[in-house]
Amino acid sequence: MKDLYTIGVDYGTESGRAVVVRVRDGQEMASAVTPYPHGVIDHHLPTGETLPPDWALQHPDDYLEVLRNAVPEALKVSGVQPEDVVGIGIDFTACTMLPTLQDGTPLCFLPELKTEKHTYVKLWKHHAAQKHADRINETAARMGEKWLSRYGNKISSEWFFAKALQILEEAPEVYAQADRLIEAADWVVWQLTGQETRNTCTAGYKAMHQDGHFPSRAYFAALNPAFADVVQDKMLTELSPLGGKAGTLSMKAAQWTGLKEGIAVAVANVDAHVAVPAATVTEAGQMVAIMGTSTCHMLLGEKLKEVPGMCGVVDGGIIPGLYGYEAGQSGVGDIFGWFVKHAVPEAHHQQARAEHVSVHQILEREAAKQRPGEHGLIALDWLNGNRSNLVDADLSGLILGLTLHTRAPDIYRALIEATAFGTRAIIDNFRAHGVPVTELIIAGGLKKNKMLMQIYADVTELPLSIVTSEQGPALGSAIHAAVAAGLYEDIRAAAKVMGRLEKHVYKPIPENARIYREMYKEYLTLHDHFGRGLNNVMKRLKKLKTGEVQDAAATLA
Amino acid sequence: MKDLYTIGVDYGTESGRAVVVRVRDGQEMASAVTPYPHGVIDHHLPTGETLPPDWALQHPDDYLEVLRNAVPEALKVSGVQPEDVVGIGIDFTACTMLPTLQDGTPLCFLPELKTEKHTYVKLWKHHAAQKHADRINETAARMGEKWLSRYGNKISSEWFFAKALQILEEAPEVYAQADRLIEAADWVVWQLTGQETRNTCTAGYKAMHQDGHFPSRAYFAALNPAFADVVQDKMLTELSPLGGKAGTLSMKAAQWTGLKEGIAVAVANVDAHVAVPAATVTEAGQMVAIMGTSTCHMLLGEKLKEVPGMCGVVDGGIIPGLYGYEAGQSGVGDIFGWFVKHAVPEAHHQQARAEHVSVHQILEREAAKQRPGEHGLIALDWLNGNRSNLVDADLSGLILGLTLHTRAPDIYRALIEATAFGTRAIIDNFRAHGVPVTELIIAGGLKKNKMLMQIYADVTELPLSIVTSEQGPALGSAIHAAVAAGLYEDIRAAAKVMGRLEKHVYKPIPENARIYREMYKEYLTLHDHFGRGLNNVMKRLKKLKTGEVQDAAATLA
Repeated sequence: MKDLYTIGVDYGTESGRAVVVRVRDGQEMASAVTPYPHGVIDHHLPTGETLPPDWALQHPDDYLEVLRNAVPEALKVSGVQPEDVVGIGIDFTACTMLPTLQDGTPLCFLPELKTEKHTYVKLWKHHAAQKHADRINETAARMGEKWLSRYGNKISSEWFFAKALQILEEAPEVYAQADRLIEAADWVVWQLTGQETRNTCTAGYKAMHQDGHFPSRAYFAALNPAFADVVQDKMLTELSPLGGKAGTLSMKAAQWTGLKEGIAVAVANVDAHVAVPAATVTEAGQMVAIMGTSTCHMLLGEKLKEVPGMCGVVDGGIIPGLYGYEAGQSGVGDIFGWFVKHAVPEAHHQQARAEHVSVHQILEREAAKQRPGEHGLIALDWLNGNRSNLVDADLSGLILGLTLHTRAPDIYRALIEATAFGTRAIIDNFRAHGVPVTELIIAGGLKKNKMLMQIYADVTELPLSIVTSEQGPALGSAIHAAVAAGLYEDIRAAAKVMGRLEKHVYKPIPENARIYREMYKEYLTLHDHFGRGLNNVMKRLKKLKTGEVQDAAATLA
Repeated sequence: MKDLYTIGVDYGTESGRAVVVRVRDGQEMASAVTPYPHGVIDHHLPTGETLPPDWALQHPDDYLEVLRNAVPEALKVSGVQPEDVVGIGIDFTACTMLPTLQDGTPLCFLPELKTEKHTYVKLWKHHAAQKHADRINETAARMGEKWLSRYGNKISSEWFFAKALQILEEAPEVYAQADRLIEAADWVVWQLTGQETRNTCTAGYKAMHQDGHFPSRAYFAALNPAFADVVQDKMLTELSPLGGKAGTLSMKAAQWTGLKEGIAVAVANVDAHVAVPAATVTEAGQMVAIMGTSTCHMLLGEKLKEVPGMCGVVDGGIIPGLYGYEAGQSGVGDIFGWFVKHAVPEAHHQQARAEHVSVHQILEREAAKQRPGEHGLIALDWLNGNRSNLVDADLSGLILGLTLHTRAPDIYRALIEATAFGTRAIIDNFRAHGVPVTELIIAGGLKKNKMLMQIYADVTELPLSIVTSEQGPALGSAIHAAVAAGLYEDIRAAAKVMGRLEKHVYKPIPENARIYREMYKEYLTLHDHFGRGLNNVMKRLKKLKTGEVQDAAATLA
């Protein structure tokens, strides 16, 4: 019997990546990347208009460019014949959303609207809807909305209705013209199939869909009377479950991709969530940490628990039949990158060049010689704010214990440890609220850093298993495609065969764990002191930074 | 009438500097430096024996080398004739002390003793007598010794009797052979005159001499019965006041220096203290901050007050007739130097080379563009511990407010601000305990950094006057020599003419001062939280560093 293949396409922040996967064993045959021609649009629209601070947009045609380039390129490199490809699946950043016409045409494609910023895709990291998010939270708390606790009691400005409300209130004419407000993930699937669907994952995690329905009309009306019918007027209310088939590949999409018309197209999904089956994870208690510039923690649970500070819990949000919990750390690899770029002395850069290795490797080598606690430092890993468990973007980083003998590898190690303590705090928070965590699985770029992995094992006191696929989310999308094509009964069955995991690569070293238990206590004390209101100095400094306090002082003076 | 001159010799940590000064106006004619051939002896004795951690010794012959080289060299460069030089004065680091025979021969000069580490000079920063200092403090507290409060309630391990007790207990045979335990300052004057003296300044600040006497025999006996007679057996008990004449230059010393036998030799003094008259400061309320790697704060007062956390108060310890108060910050320029060396990225170093300026200048230029508070950071300046007001070497540094947008000039500015807040805390502490501070005068190398000076003016809300002499302590010693030679009635009269000060060079800018008042509040909150026992994390981390806690944990496990 001849081999069959599926294609997974992972839509990231800067580019899209296609991978060709063999269905019988998950072997990755080839992959190709297409950078988005417009990248992240955060200064000027393509037509030249200047954007305000905190905006982050994209151009939807860039997503089609990935279909037109990365998919045929990956196929070509793999040597796989188009007739042997039986399905395609995609995953996306989220909430990344856009307004379209009834037929799916993005409003920014209309010549008369392309100079209007609100017609473009609002990327996940578009942060200009904070005041809308604040009202969403206040109103929900005031009205006792039950869904609020499913999101750790706080909705992010990155999510769907904050962005939608911003469109309504800042560009009512755009809102009026939009027949649909849709996740980019679902929009791409619509382009592939010619048929609109809405996936349960983004609906649940980003659009407050809980227990079978979105928030009530009364709630939306309380935000703004004109927003009352946002769900009925602007959204498809029927949801498609993960692993389902959204439709079949249209002739137009077949031409773009070089694939055969009529093959299965899987329901869209979110990048972090689809990486879970790629890690063979389908059971309660297993946590997948996707560690890159930031970390997403995905956890499966049998029971519905409300966990303060988590990002969200969605029934079937990761795997049908289990509750999918999500938490996160907003700065991880970003912090190490910042440190290497802005706080490492010249000698380490020279050394790295001489040895043709990265500065990270030089620092890791030096830091790995130390025993835990030897550098005398404790850091708080909040250089990009805190997502879980404090859900507070106004917090900032701290390094304590500095002396004239402190050296760059000491601080590097302390920053890594701080992120590990942050992960432990997330694990402990889930456990404290009745969601067991029994295993930690690592995906994402940071898994390559051996010292970091050992520190995570020692700090969490859990054995670490490592996802061996280099393309976790794209592999996950290919797994979804195989299920959509009917080659496996469900995601669980497909993941068991197609996922790629090396078990228990790093085990906690007892004497290290003992010291880290002491240091974690110190971390938690500082965490609560600065993070839970005992000393709000970080918030006050942030205000001083923006000049708010001076202005107030000047007014009084 | 022809011009007369005196010579001041400033004995620092690494070298000695001689300066030739015109008596009628304080004009510095020339100076010369002699680095100590043995430098700081902190790893091996000259005979090869390894030293334990925290030891810091010197070789007394190095001090004579300064007399044999720097003095004739400065004289030669100045073009001044030896017959026109009427006096010489010296100042020294303190407490820097050594054991000698009855005739002043250092024990380490004896061939049979030169391999014994306790026979060498114990330099001020010899830190191996901490446990002796702890006992000195505990015993004094238990016995209710009145002098303890004259030193902010804490004697440092750097001081005289801690070092003396260490000799007794670790090398009783050296203690027994020592006819004298003497300050290096007084020892050099002894070498110049052939006659032993003991100056009031070091006796008061470093050897607990208060109200006319040293601590009691009963107190010393309580420390160790064999220590009971340390004062009577090992020390000259008659003290010589500052500005006094210790004697005249011996023939031998005239040969070393090229000066005329019989000229006046001033009573020895401490470097920081002698810099006060060089700054024309002779009145109560005037504070001189000598800012270099660390900062010494010298303050004159009319009344005797006991100020917790100060280093000490001595009647006539700076100027006869006034109380001389001393406080200090153990890391200042050292912190900025550490930062430049270990935490500044390559680009700033490249920029500095391209412009042929220092990295400090590059950072200062960038940081000076900011308004106060703009970087969003607060630091605690304890990277070398805290001398005043907390007197705690186990504290460490902290930086709070870091984000992915923080850059090296931001941290550089925050560290400078932290040291300024530290100085303000010292000023406020004196004021709170009844010692007025009305003026701030800056001496030392850091006075050249304009941004730093403006920040100090804005933070302390005091106008800053700047000592214009490049050789503050050496000029001060030359002033003392002029008084000893009888050319001025007293130090006050000599300082008025020979001291060099530019008044009110930096004035507080009201809008900056207003913001710094907010930031200083934050600094104080953190200062008290981590410095006064609310969270002793810094001490616990220091123990983890040295492995103490692990060992304890391992024992329990």
